Amino acid sequence: MSEIDTQETSPIARLLETWSHLTAEEKLQTFRSLPAGESEDFFLALDAREHAALFQDFNRAERRLWLRFLAPDDAADLIQELPEELRGEALAMIDEKIRREIIALLSYREDEAGGLMSPRFVRVRPDMLVAEALRYVRQQALFVDPIHYIYVLDSNQRLLGVLSLRQLFVSPAEKRMSEVMEDKVVTIPDEMDQEQVGRMFQQHRFVALPVVDREGLMQGIVTLDDILDVSQEEATEDIQKLGGQEALDAPYPQVPLPEMIKKRAGWLMLLFVGEMFTATAMQQFEGEIEKAVVLALFIPLIISSGGNSGSQATTLIIRSLALRELRLSDWRRVMGREILTGVSLGGILAAIGMVRILLWPNRATAYTEHYALVALTVGLSLIGVVLFGSVVGAMLPFLLRSLKLDPASASAPFVATLVDVTGLVIYFSVARMLLTGTLL
Amino acid sequence: MSEIDTQETSPIARLLETWSHLTAEEKLQTFRSLPAGESEDFFLALDAREHAALFQDFNRAERRLWLRFLAPDDAADLIQELPEELRGEALAMIDEKIRREIIALLSYREDEAGGLMSPRFVRVRPDMLVAEALRYVRQQALFVDPIHYIYVLDSNQRLLGVLSLRQLFVSPAEKRMSEVMEDKVVTIPDEMDQEQVGRMFQQHRFVALPVVDREGLMQGIVTLDDILDVSQEEATEDIQKLGGQEALDAPYPQVPLPEMIKKRAGWLMLLFVGEMFTATAMQQFEGEIEKAVVLALFIPLIISSGGNSGSQATTLIIRSLALRELRLSDWRRVMGREILTGVSLGGILAAIGMVRILLWPNRATAYTEHYALVALTVGLSLIGVVLFGSVVGAMLPFLLRSLKLDPASASAPFVATLVDVTGLVIYFSVARMLLTGTLL
Repeated sequence: MSEIDTQETSPIARLLETWSHLTAEEKLQTFRSLPAGESEDFFLALDAREHAALFQDFNRAERRLWLRFLAPDDAADLIQELPEELRGEALAMIDEKIRREIIALLSYREDEAGGLMSPRFVRVRPDMLVAEALRYVRQQALFVDPIHYIYVLDSNQRLLGVLSLRQLFVSPAEKRMSEVMEDKVVTIPDEMDQEQVGRMFQQHRFVALPVVDREGLMQGIVTLDDILDVSQEEATEDIQKLGGQEALDAPYPQVPLPEMIKKRAGWLMLLFVGEMFTATAMQQFEGEIEKAVVLALFIPLIISSGGNSGSQATTLIIRSLALRELRLSDWRRVMGREILTGVSLGGILAAIGMVRILLWPNRATAYTEHYALVALTVGLSLIGVVLFGSVVGAMLPFLLRSLKLDPASASAPFVATLVDVTGLVIYFSVARMLLTGTLL
Repeated sequence: MSEIDTQETSPIARLLETWSHLTAEEKLQTFRSLPAGESEDFFLALDAREHAALFQDFNRAERRLWLRFLAPDDAADLIQELPEELRGEALAMIDEKIRREIIALLSYREDEAGGLMSPRFVRVRPDMLVAEALRYVRQQALFVDPIHYIYVLDSNQRLLGVLSLRQLFVSPAEKRMSEVMEDKVVTIPDEMDQEQVGRMFQQHRFVALPVVDREGLMQGIVTLDDILDVSQEEATEDIQKLGGQEALDAPYPQVPLPEMIKKRAGWLMLLFVGEMFTATAMQQFEGEIEKAVVLALFIPLIISSGGNSGSQATTLIIRSLALRELRLSDWRRVMGREILTGVSLGGILAAIGMVRILLWPNRATAYTEHYALVALTVGLSLIGVVLFGSVVGAMLPFLLRSLKLDPASASAPFVATLVDVTGLVIYFSVARMLLTGTLL
């Protein structure tokens, strides 16, 4: 195994794991101390944010060297991460031809296909012979890396067909490209959202897909490894939103404290204001609580059960919508399922809750002599609240999607807040029905 | 654009989107009605679960045809998804040589590198000339698809080096493979967990990585497109656990109702039993509520604010740990951040809550003549509860990880339940301190 560099011994992998824990100064020192060869591999493994951070700490010679070392799309990403005032200087360090490529890339939004693509790909003409194409690709291979597919373009850069390097390799030398190419090409419009680009890759399982503009002219390629990052990013955003906050734009340890507080305070305030309605609702039932303080005991238990079941339903549905397992038109079917689920789950909790009250050693002193009626009130309320939580939690993402909003905004805390207010109303209404004449 | 098949018009993509909404019978009919050529592409785009479902509905001739059509790793996945009693029959349909490959693959767990890998790759000997290797690869290219890398193995199948098809292509014809290959190879142990395999791909950005056993013998390759599915799956699992439930093993619409209820009931019951301590805690403060019913009004508001801030913290930390942005040893630093964040967020909510009480039109009747003291009680409790929620929510994932448990089990509802009980104790303790002598 001496020649084989396994994960345990890969210095790049190890350095990457510890990288985010270093200070800016340590990063610069560590990077400068890497042996030649390793520093190139390591630099390529960093993301655009880290590229930009290092770039700002580099001296002028290093800036020039490393910026020119990157492929045009990675250089464009680095420049996008720089503060406004440094961008012009960075662009000026690059040769005219590549600068033009980069400026074209900078015109795309980061989260659309054009912003993900590389403008470097291997192109051939349809009337070329396979033997000619092989020689030609061999020349281009010195400048384009990696090469997975060969794209066949007409003189206007219109995409006519594609074949893999492997297919070119096994094609008869005397055939024309137009005869051996695949002319049913899956393409990506340059303005397609990155989430949708990710789904295209999952459906088609290619290593790279060509990006075309509205006229069908080829602009570049998006490769599968870019999509892996995108899919992680999108999942991170959804998870953070599900926690009831705005998505952070950077890893947790790197977000400045004031920015993190801002991202969390917004939703927390909104939820707090929503939750204030619980105080208003409770005021309507102050008389009941005064007469039967025992009712207050179960308030947290009942409303949290609604929140928990709502949180389950909403996370399931949000993820299923994101993965396109569910469509908008499925809402009826989902509602049916959640009604059944809600009644079952509510029934289970009701049984546990009632047993707890009915079999509690000092039940008569803890829950008054009408403890059986209290148990029934708690049980029926639990069924109602869990049912309501499951249905609201499941329907809210559908509602948001149909309003063209992000379903992931239906966070667990948001659903819990909605359910809390209603849960109180359900609980005290059941209590009024069952306990008037005894406790009330 | 007539020759170019864009996403809007791709029949395979469209069919995939609607596929999960068809009944088994409709799926079989639709699949059988696909034109030749398209049915192959479509079948390859389906996942193992769908392969197995179709397989069971196929007639004998179709079973044989489509099972043999799949690559060995995909066939192994299909067989793994079949009910026990069908597996022998399926294996018997396959030729001896490939059957042996498949049986070897079946010995790996689905979620380890060996379970993800394909046993098909292009291998050459180190003493081959580049010109020979090119001819040899050309022959193998008819059977192996796709080809990204050429692996150099000794006669014992020990992995010595690797080079990409592109590199082979541009290498001088008279050199030996051992001279042009890259001998620092990143490899994956065959028993590595799929989550870690995903991280290897993110660090190294290769299209495929070789899998070796403990002796360093090459077993197969894992390709980037498999990893895309894995990364989606892992994110889905984490999201579902964050919602306070066991991860479903299949898309929401396909999970039978009893199974889904079972997966949700477990955690819901556990949370419910935990939440019962709120009733016990409340009993200790029954005297206070009896004297000052106004205190009951703010119970849901206060405990839910703790739950919400805990939910934010826990989702941020769980995701950061999953992405390896944070390590176990970072817990102190995170605690420091969360204390500052908790105090700030708690302060903001306290301000809103106090303003609401102090400026409410009929504050004296709604919140008694001591409404200013009530406001102070609510405000201080909010700071305490939000601080507690943020710190507990952030520390719990670290605690679970250090106990070798899955941090994602620290779901938002779980944290909320922990915080609810403590929140009540904080609230009534503050009330006792501030209100004894006036309201209490």
